[in-house]
Amino acid sequence: MERIHCGTLRPADKEKNVKLKGWVQKRRDLGGLIFIDLRDRSGLVQIVFNPDESSEALKTAEDIRSEYVIEVMGKVVIRDENTINPNMSTGEIEVLVHDIQVLNKAKTPPFMIEENSEVAEDIRLKYRYLDLRRREMQETFKLRHQTTQVMRNFLNDEGYLEMETPMLTKSTPEGARDYLVPSRVHEGEFYALPQSPQLFKQMLMMSGFEKYYQIARCFRDEDLRADRQPEFTQVDIETSFMSKEDIMAMTERMMAKVMKEVKGIDISTPFQRMPYDEAMERFGSDKPDTRFGLELITLSEIVKDSGFKVFSGAVASGGKVSGLNVKSQADAFSRKDIDKLTEDVKVYGAKGLAWLKVNEGQLNGPIAKFFSEEEAAQIMSAMNAEEGDLLLFVADKTSVVYDSLGALRLKLGKKLELIDPNTFNFLWVTDWPLFEYDEDEERFFAAHHPFTMPADGDVSQIIDHPQEARAEAYDIVLNGYELGGGSLRIYEKEMQDRMFEALGFSKEEADEQFGFLLEALEYGTPPHGGIALGFDRFIMLLAGRTNLRDTILFPKTASAQDPLTDAPGKVSEAQLDELNLKLKRKKQD
Amino acid sequence: MERIHCGTLRPADKEKNVKLKGWVQKRRDLGGLIFIDLRDRSGLVQIVFNPDESSEALKTAEDIRSEYVIEVMGKVVIRDENTINPNMSTGEIEVLVHDIQVLNKAKTPPFMIEENSEVAEDIRLKYRYLDLRRREMQETFKLRHQTTQVMRNFLNDEGYLEMETPMLTKSTPEGARDYLVPSRVHEGEFYALPQSPQLFKQMLMMSGFEKYYQIARCFRDEDLRADRQPEFTQVDIETSFMSKEDIMAMTERMMAKVMKEVKGIDISTPFQRMPYDEAMERFGSDKPDTRFGLELITLSEIVKDSGFKVFSGAVASGGKVSGLNVKSQADAFSRKDIDKLTEDVKVYGAKGLAWLKVNEGQLNGPIAKFFSEEEAAQIMSAMNAEEGDLLLFVADKTSVVYDSLGALRLKLGKKLELIDPNTFNFLWVTDWPLFEYDEDEERFFAAHHPFTMPADGDVSQIIDHPQEARAEAYDIVLNGYELGGGSLRIYEKEMQDRMFEALGFSKEEADEQFGFLLEALEYGTPPHGGIALGFDRFIMLLAGRTNLRDTILFPKTASAQDPLTDAPGKVSEAQLDELNLKLKRKKQD
Repeated sequence: MERIHCGTLRPADKEKNVKLKGWVQKRRDLGGLIFIDLRDRSGLVQIVFNPDESSEALKTAEDIRSEYVIEVMGKVVIRDENTINPNMSTGEIEVLVHDIQVLNKAKTPPFMIEENSEVAEDIRLKYRYLDLRRREMQETFKLRHQTTQVMRNFLNDEGYLEMETPMLTKSTPEGARDYLVPSRVHEGEFYALPQSPQLFKQMLMMSGFEKYYQIARCFRDEDLRADRQPEFTQVDIETSFMSKEDIMAMTERMMAKVMKEVKGIDISTPFQRMPYDEAMERFGSDKPDTRFGLELITLSEIVKDSGFKVFSGAVASGGKVSGLNVKSQADAFSRKDIDKLTEDVKVYGAKGLAWLKVNEGQLNGPIAKFFSEEEAAQIMSAMNAEEGDLLLFVADKTSVVYDSLGALRLKLGKKLELIDPNTFNFLWVTDWPLFEYDEDEERFFAAHHPFTMPADGDVSQIIDHPQEARAEAYDIVLNGYELGGGSLRIYEKEMQDRMFEALGFSKEEADEQFGFLLEALEYGTPPHGGIALGFDRFIMLLAGRTNLRDTILFPKTASAQDPLTDAPGKVSEAQLDELNLKLKRKKQD
Repeated sequence: MERIHCGTLRPADKEKNVKLKGWVQKRRDLGGLIFIDLRDRSGLVQIVFNPDESSEALKTAEDIRSEYVIEVMGKVVIRDENTINPNMSTGEIEVLVHDIQVLNKAKTPPFMIEENSEVAEDIRLKYRYLDLRRREMQETFKLRHQTTQVMRNFLNDEGYLEMETPMLTKSTPEGARDYLVPSRVHEGEFYALPQSPQLFKQMLMMSGFEKYYQIARCFRDEDLRADRQPEFTQVDIETSFMSKEDIMAMTERMMAKVMKEVKGIDISTPFQRMPYDEAMERFGSDKPDTRFGLELITLSEIVKDSGFKVFSGAVASGGKVSGLNVKSQADAFSRKDIDKLTEDVKVYGAKGLAWLKVNEGQLNGPIAKFFSEEEAAQIMSAMNAEEGDLLLFVADKTSVVYDSLGALRLKLGKKLELIDPNTFNFLWVTDWPLFEYDEDEERFFAAHHPFTMPADGDVSQIIDHPQEARAEAYDIVLNGYELGGGSLRIYEKEMQDRMFEALGFSKEEADEQFGFLLEALEYGTPPHGGIALGFDRFIMLLAGRTNLRDTILFPKTASAQDPLTDAPGKVSEAQLDELNLKLKRKKQD
């Protein structure tokens, strides 16, 4: 007899004889009968053991406990009206068991297999195989599977070829820290695990494949934050002969398809586009959450000559003054509440948080007296300040103003429930700086990577005014998260030479590290570009979760360990010896 | 104007204005005109520059060389009847160019971009991006892409979930040599790259997902042969509650779908099944190529008392005697030819190759005199020997007989063209030994892996008679290549404990290495099993190629190097220091 899945049974199946296999979710004994909620990957169904049906099965059921794996044969019957469970998709029926077989026993699990379980995460990860039995985890990984297939089908339909690039590659000093893999054959040499397939996908364009994608595992040996993992998955795409607009439009079609097929939501395209500078000025962030307002308002011009030295001084020393208008919250925020917000902005280096309240048409608060009537009117006008509004200000170096007010905006957005959790706001951030200046190393680094095309192919800019140079780069942002980013790539050797020069590479250093790329550029490289999307994070947002680890089957902890298998672990002396390695310091036990 | 792909143009497109982008395959100057074969991923089309159409474009074309990347606008015209090229799918038309733009130049490539190029492999790999431009390579990777999608769609349709297991895992001493990845955070500890997702896919069954698959990258740090790579791809599948027959039938449906959709070939299912012992006895191989006969024939019983001491002695000391009947080849093989075959079998440890020829109804040859008339008749009958047949024999330890005659059979099959290259013969090899005895280490090892279910769940056998124990394992063989293998897994803790005991693990060692698995088995593990298919090798066979490296975009050489990027490479002292490592010996330069 064919096995039926528990969660699929319906009243239409009544009188059918069925075979079910699954896990015991819960057992209840009642009036000489035994009721079991039987679980498989499709859901739950109630099965009933009674002495009329089979006293033998009933006897076996007496020893059964949660998480036993059983196989039963039984008859589907309609429940009495008063025992119907409207919260269960199979709640109108139950299965009268006439035959049972215990396939495997189970000890009492360390935690209940149920939704919204409040178990400490280290226990969940140690017993991940139990944690994953929970309905919400099963649903998350079904959604991940489904999203993968929708994206693949989209890319296949658009003529992209799925291609596999190497995992054992070469370490390059640009970018994040590599995971290294010692070579046994070549003593003293190492492979590196890829931070992304960047150079290989460019090589594939040089190979004439024109349209490539890969759902690729990538690795970064960085200190972990809540939304980072040592290994992560990205949807990696590269194309030849396509413009920036072509690539962005293709990405939008893909996203619209995922939202429709996975979430049933129609999203409109094209997505909003916002230059980097505007995103920073209005949202204090290069990945703005545009689901709510509470935007930053630049006040530097208005307050640059004001008597409030904190403001005028910040502008005079090249910084800026920006403010947030927290509408109608003047009364809701006490002095103490504002002191707490001040602590929040200090985390980002702000020296303080100035505030004003609008009361009877006037600005009120300790700093109000420093502004002329005209300045006060201009501030109110610029900030659209109305009765009962709370105005918050940071005056500092521009980067500090953005970081602190950007974070404060998000915090207040959540606190004041300005954000609709069911909205998905996609946004392109464009016109990125080509370089970032590193003050410690006193040199420019590539803001994206050294293969990014300068805007308008402007070679001279990158050498003469690197701080002004812009990139042909675009990031896709969803609800305040960077979902991915891409760029057109440099495809002319001379331009790539100049780029390495701007990054402070000597010709020898460039050749040593990227000689193969520089050589390849000389053999007919097509114009090309692409994008990479952070797949784990996308799933997190689609599943409505907040912890990236809930979207990865066997994630690592913040210290890069797997509590289930206890990786990483010790290896034998013989293994190290084969690799020509020894530990520099003995481990401190 | 939308770009059109070169290879798609047909006479129906005549008079159309088209935009093309691609690479210059070849330029020919003829009578004041210039002809270029333009190539993109769809194929080739001839474009023509003539002074009537555009003298400016003609002038630009004069500087164009092979592998330049160009964009042209032109008009599709039908060729004169006498210039039609029937060998080109676009051979009936050409494109008269009125506008050309050089997108990128190219130096003269180190080899021609053409089919069946006879370039040394190290050069091909160093300039892999040029090698991959060749039509046969483009076709191989399109076939790889297509096969991937067919398998995925099949598995999706059958309810399997695609799931991603970790790459940074724990090293275990069983199995092949691991690639290790030093941990920076946990000094002196290492991750290992997975040899397969075996334990994680079992964990997913314990998690209740029931049907899993992954097209998974796997790693083995072994010395490389022609058909091995340090990293390789396997189609990894695991299921719960399915029988061995269920899993084999599912695999057959998948293979039939691939053969139909990728190759247009109907293959019949179920596939032939052959116990391991039979495969060895008849083919001298655990992965027999069943596309041709020339089977091994066991003669031990017939010759055990013969006067030829080499034969009778081999049987007496526990070995065996087997022969091959090379039909109608008596005259074709001279003594010298047979001497060469003897050298071949010696590679496998055989001490010699005996031979007989059938001439005028009699066995002829130097050893003929040792056999009685009855023995000679029995040999001829057993081997179905007829006039003009060449009979070859090895008498030795059983394993030497199988290895040497198995290899000789393959060699003769190829040499005598007994194999139809267009046939795809799938075969299951079943009833595998559970253990292999390692004479160096003087202990039993798991023939597949230590999680394989013993046949009929027979616990006592594995402790008391390990050499007799059989596994619930099955290998799928295609045309003499092991395409993959699988098994039912142990799902009861007691059985797994016994298995580790049989492998010589103390309880402490088993807990240290596999404690998490042993613990997981106690919390309601369903009966489960699966299969893994070597994807690179499958593609090699589907594409009709003989070199595994031609199926991998950026493969490693036999010394595990990538000649393109020059991986592996040196890393900085600082990188090693962060990992608490130093080299044991200085590299010998």
